Amino acid sequence: MVIVMKPQATKEEIAGVEKLLQSLNFGVHISEGSERTIIGVIGDKRQLAETPLELMSGVDRVVHILEPYKLVGRAFHPESTTIKVGSQEIGGNRIVVMAGPCAVENEHQLLTTARFLKEQGATFLRGGAYKPRSSPYSFQGLEEEGLKILAQARKETGLLIVSEAVSPHSLEQIAKYADMVQIGARNMQNFNLLQEAGRSNMPVILKRGLSATIEEWLNAAEYIMSEGNYNIILCERGIRTFETYTRNTMDVSSIPSVKELSHLPVIADPSHGTGRWKLVTPMSRAAIAAGADGILVEVHPNPKEALSDGPQSLNFDSFTALMKDIRRIAGILGREI
Amino acid sequence: MVIVMKPQATKEEIAGVEKLLQSLNFGVHISEGSERTIIGVIGDKRQLAETPLELMSGVDRVVHILEPYKLVGRAFHPESTTIKVGSQEIGGNRIVVMAGPCAVENEHQLLTTARFLKEQGATFLRGGAYKPRSSPYSFQGLEEEGLKILAQARKETGLLIVSEAVSPHSLEQIAKYADMVQIGARNMQNFNLLQEAGRSNMPVILKRGLSATIEEWLNAAEYIMSEGNYNIILCERGIRTFETYTRNTMDVSSIPSVKELSHLPVIADPSHGTGRWKLVTPMSRAAIAAGADGILVEVHPNPKEALSDGPQSLNFDSFTALMKDIRRIAGILGREI
Amino acid sequence: MVIVMKPQATKEEIAGVEKLLQSLNFGVHISEGSERTIIGVIGDKRQLAETPLELMSGVDRVVHILEPYKLVGRAFHPESTTIKVGSQEIGGNRIVVMAGPCAVENEHQLLTTARFLKEQGATFLRGGAYKPRSSPYSFQGLEEEGLKILAQARKETGLLIVSEAVSPHSLEQIAKYADMVQIGARNMQNFNLLQEAGRSNMPVILKRGLSATIEEWLNAAEYIMSEGNYNIILCERGIRTFETYTRNTMDVSSIPSVKELSHLPVIADPSHGTGRWKLVTPMSRAAIAAGADGILVEVHPNPKEALSDGPQSLNFDSFTALMKDIRRIAGILGREI
Amino acid sequence: MVIVMKPQATKEEIAGVEKLLQSLNFGVHISEGSERTIIGVIGDKRQLAETPLELMSGVDRVVHILEPYKLVGRAFHPESTTIKVGSQEIGGNRIVVMAGPCAVENEHQLLTTARFLKEQGATFLRGGAYKPRSSPYSFQGLEEEGLKILAQARKETGLLIVSEAVSPHSLEQIAKYADMVQIGARNMQNFNLLQEAGRSNMPVILKRGLSATIEEWLNAAEYIMSEGNYNIILCERGIRTFETYTRNTMDVSSIPSVKELSHLPVIADPSHGTGRWKLVTPMSRAAIAAGADGILVEVHPNPKEALSDGPQSLNFDSFTALMKDIRRIAGILGREI
Repeated sequence: MVIVMKPQATKEEIAGVEKLLQSLNFGVHISEGSERTIIGVIGDKRQLAETPLELMSGVDRVVHILEPYKLVGRAFHPESTTIKVGSQEIGGNRIVVMAGPCAVENEHQLLTTARFLKEQGATFLRGGAYKPRSSPYSFQGLEEEGLKILAQARKETGLLIVSEAVSPHSLEQIAKYADMVQIGARNMQNFNLLQEAGRSNMPVILKRGLSATIEEWLNAAEYIMSEGNYNIILCERGIRTFETYTRNTMDVSSIPSVKELSHLPVIADPSHGTGRWKLVTPMSRAAIAAGADGILVEVHPNPKEALSDGPQSLNFDSFTALMKDIRRIAGILGREI
Repeated sequence: MVIVMKPQATKEEIAGVEKLLQSLNFGVHISEGSERTIIGVIGDKRQLAETPLELMSGVDRVVHILEPYKLVGRAFHPESTTIKVGSQEIGGNRIVVMAGPCAVENEHQLLTTARFLKEQGATFLRGGAYKPRSSPYSFQGLEEEGLKILAQARKETGLLIVSEAVSPHSLEQIAKYADMVQIGARNMQNFNLLQEAGRSNMPVILKRGLSATIEEWLNAAEYIMSEGNYNIILCERGIRTFETYTRNTMDVSSIPSVKELSHLPVIADPSHGTGRWKLVTPMSRAAIAAGADGILVEVHPNPKEALSDGPQSLNFDSFTALMKDIRRIAGILGREI
Repeated sequence: MVIVMKPQATKEEIAGVEKLLQSLNFGVHISEGSERTIIGVIGDKRQLAETPLELMSGVDRVVHILEPYKLVGRAFHPESTTIKVGSQEIGGNRIVVMAGPCAVENEHQLLTTARFLKEQGATFLRGGAYKPRSSPYSFQGLEEEGLKILAQARKETGLLIVSEAVSPHSLEQIAKYADMVQIGARNMQNFNLLQEAGRSNMPVILKRGLSATIEEWLNAAEYIMSEGNYNIILCERGIRTFETYTRNTMDVSSIPSVKELSHLPVIADPSHGTGRWKLVTPMSRAAIAAGADGILVEVHPNPKEALSDGPQSLNFDSFTALMKDIRRIAGILGREI
Repeated sequence: MVIVMKPQATKEEIAGVEKLLQSLNFGVHISEGSERTIIGVIGDKRQLAETPLELMSGVDRVVHILEPYKLVGRAFHPESTTIKVGSQEIGGNRIVVMAGPCAVENEHQLLTTARFLKEQGATFLRGGAYKPRSSPYSFQGLEEEGLKILAQARKETGLLIVSEAVSPHSLEQIAKYADMVQIGARNMQNFNLLQEAGRSNMPVILKRGLSATIEEWLNAAEYIMSEGNYNIILCERGIRTFETYTRNTMDVSSIPSVKELSHLPVIADPSHGTGRWKLVTPMSRAAIAAGADGILVEVHPNPKEALSDGPQSLNFDSFTALMKDIRRIAGILGREI
């Protein structure tokens, strides 16, 4: 941590800050610059987080040097982590494809999709049973009924199941029926839910919040990990910007950025990332080319009849083409699907 | 709802859309333009929300004409609503001042603050017992212990109590001890919590999410109201933009905008809105001048020692000056404090 | 400037950075922290701006401590500046009102408006002769013809004239006819135009760019000032955010922020800031309450027939009400109009 | 265009709008909905652009159906355009690589780079002679001297030259020495410069503005084209968002979006798009995978000594690896480099 004093700070003010820091057992380095004095603070700044040094007399600004997260960062865990889910591994050489409808609507829809996806080489089936919808008047999901249908699809196809939790209750239900739980963008800073997910023993897909910086996203993962659950997969799904042509702006550069900052696997969701099915295939290619460990895409047997997110869902033909494209890009990067 | 066909849409495609809409009992008006055909749809579009018309052959875009919320909008409820909380009324002629520390730290801190605020004319005491912090290593609040201290402050001063819920459990606890519950920015789209708040009978302060449009904010209020709780106060607290000098960008224009779109009261939180105590007074003046029904500000007897949000908290002297300023501005607008 | 080394930086790498800095005559302070070494650099970092220290072996990040601007900052010019334009002064106790139509359309429109504004107590007449329009098919302004009409209005009413330059040529023309030139938001980083304005001897209103941080805005002012023109008035006019209800999000907090960072006067343009005439009066009140030195508003005798920006223009009745409101708010702050 | 009336609009108000539109020779279709009346307007809305219908009595909102640009859109020009520059073609099957230093610094630096790039298969050499820098104290470029060095590099290597214009004067100079001119992000809405570029006969690379929507970007291209210059290449270079880890957020999805909306070629600049050299290669792969017609990257023989943008420049080794990667991705998409 570096404390920047005001240009007109007095010697007494500088000494005051020094004294406080020493009393808290921090090392202190004072540099008198041509225009300002800056004070380097040595020690774990996390212990200082609650002390508003900005308010001390003569202090202009406090500049944080260390990232606030520890467990999820590469600094103390340089090797990449792979997460095991059932027979699958995420974050290793093999790129994972998770696909399925936005919402589980009925047995026929889901099983048709699951069989098709299995055939195409996907290994995870996604489907929402509890849906976070911006309007209370929109379809909210089949809840436990939906989870049962997902479990049935697993039984038949062997696909692993991932579904979204929106509350402690739905998290418990998902733990009963699915293999992996998703925390959605709108709940990325629902710290209560993060802690609950941290106490469960399910692998967690943590989506990036609509307006979350990479640092906040990693802090959210730290919440889960600090409760003891180390099985976290990060998922870029688009951030909110001023552009209105796409539903969100998919931040492809967050993929290699997160790979640099954290040891956790990172996947991409181009369906929510763009909101337009025509962009899903080019953006899936882009995500894999940028280094993603997998993709999460919405596929529906008949998007025109989907109860939610139809405009961003791929039909079976488009998904077949997508798989072909990304298999070849994976190959270029020395990976496989 | 208006459906915009592609320039090259065929007669068959147009007829297809028309047929579908009629089968769903919608009225249809077709306008053949110089470049494109547009189809006006008559009926309640909320019934069509689940049908992805964008995917029909020949359709370019679907333009929504009606706002998705109903209960919170002025269209069907033109008069402004006032919310009664204990002996106070929010949204009427009197502007409310809610103040207190970010977090309840101990009895001494809170009671000192409460007595001072009472003296100054504030009517609500705010204080966090459950704190949503972006890092798991930051102070998370005193929980029930904090609520008990708040209740004690009410007993002694008569101030009404408002505190933030971060989960169904904390909501229940707050209902036991406080007069009003706050849903914070990070939980604005925690729909589960909104529904729980809608089922409680406490007045709710609903803060705007960091990246929520005004429409999404009103939709979130609609969630609460659709469960039967009509006592909602909206609170602007800054949105996330590219500017880094302030913690958030306080969208003062959302105040008169919400007043136009909704009948609900709206207040402003300049402490979180700016993140800098020096900006709190000018931005409180601005909020009242723009038509806010109240302000929610962080006040601490000694901000330098606050366990959270010190840099944005006012000390007692600054708060005294603030009250003087806003009283006079309220007067100009024919209101009082 | 502070250089943050990587956790695993070697002694040789640290010595390498130290040696380079010393060779450039900078003072160096090395602090070995618990996790990382940081290096404080003493001297004028502006001389280092071109040396990408981030690329040196072992360096993680470079943190800039000093603001990049000098002439416009308060650090070396603590007293507020007032700018004289004709008989008027901007930035002093008196709040200035600049008003007029978005575009000069014809003599009748402009003179009617000018006479009305004079009567109401405005001191500056604004009117666009060169219009930066996002589509080439929109009305582009009357050019020199428009300036002549403005000059005529000054002759008749005594109002001072401000008009926008969009190129070196229009800047020259405006210098012939007007009292003050405006650099618009879209040209805030048209550095060539800033330099030309810096070489002219006209007072300049510098609008904040749509996506400009406060620091970039002050840097743009520094461009003008570094060419010798010290007569600059900053103007907040809304920034681009994800919100679509308003045309832009007017950042009211930038007003007191700029007042703290710079000695220059700052005014606000609530017409462009919101894009909706109904919001112009509440946001004018908010701007004055937040400490603005003036406002710039669009007024049109008949907004329904305006050739540009009609939806955000006030008619005469609304402007009369606005003046009444802001006069009273000015009074509260010990200022006058 | 569709006019949405207020819920409480009277018959007279509806008739008033109808009458006005008919007087302007527009076709009118009135749909009386369950809650509101909407009025479809038939005819070229561009003629109505100046009439603020929003202000008519009873009107709530005006919804624009047609995009405001014409020449650059695919609606009237469905086939993709290829632009010829010297012996090269942009937008065809071959993907172009434009590379070089941010700024031309001296003959040695530029010729070393040019020879290397030629060898690697790049076809365009980029180098700034006029630099738009956010601070007036930063290196501003060698100006004509720099252009002469670029011309010399072309003579020796046969690479085509692209350089940025920042003013009408620099545009003229570039026309003398280079093959293609670039309009930078900060000048994307410098309409005067766009018009000058439209009157020149040089191919133009038009970078997307920092806060420009895709529609505004295409409108800026329309400015150039409406002056008669049809040789435009669009370039995505990152937009401004709240994320601070990267310099900008590169909007990869704008590449396939623009390909859908416009017939013009589109390339990507991952150097400015990310601001970090480590991200340039993964983001170049992503851009090509998403369908870009080329990339524009900063390469420097020794980034540590670059006078500008060192942290985002590739050295020769990294560029060699990048070329290898994108050649293989191009192959997958049936293209070549």
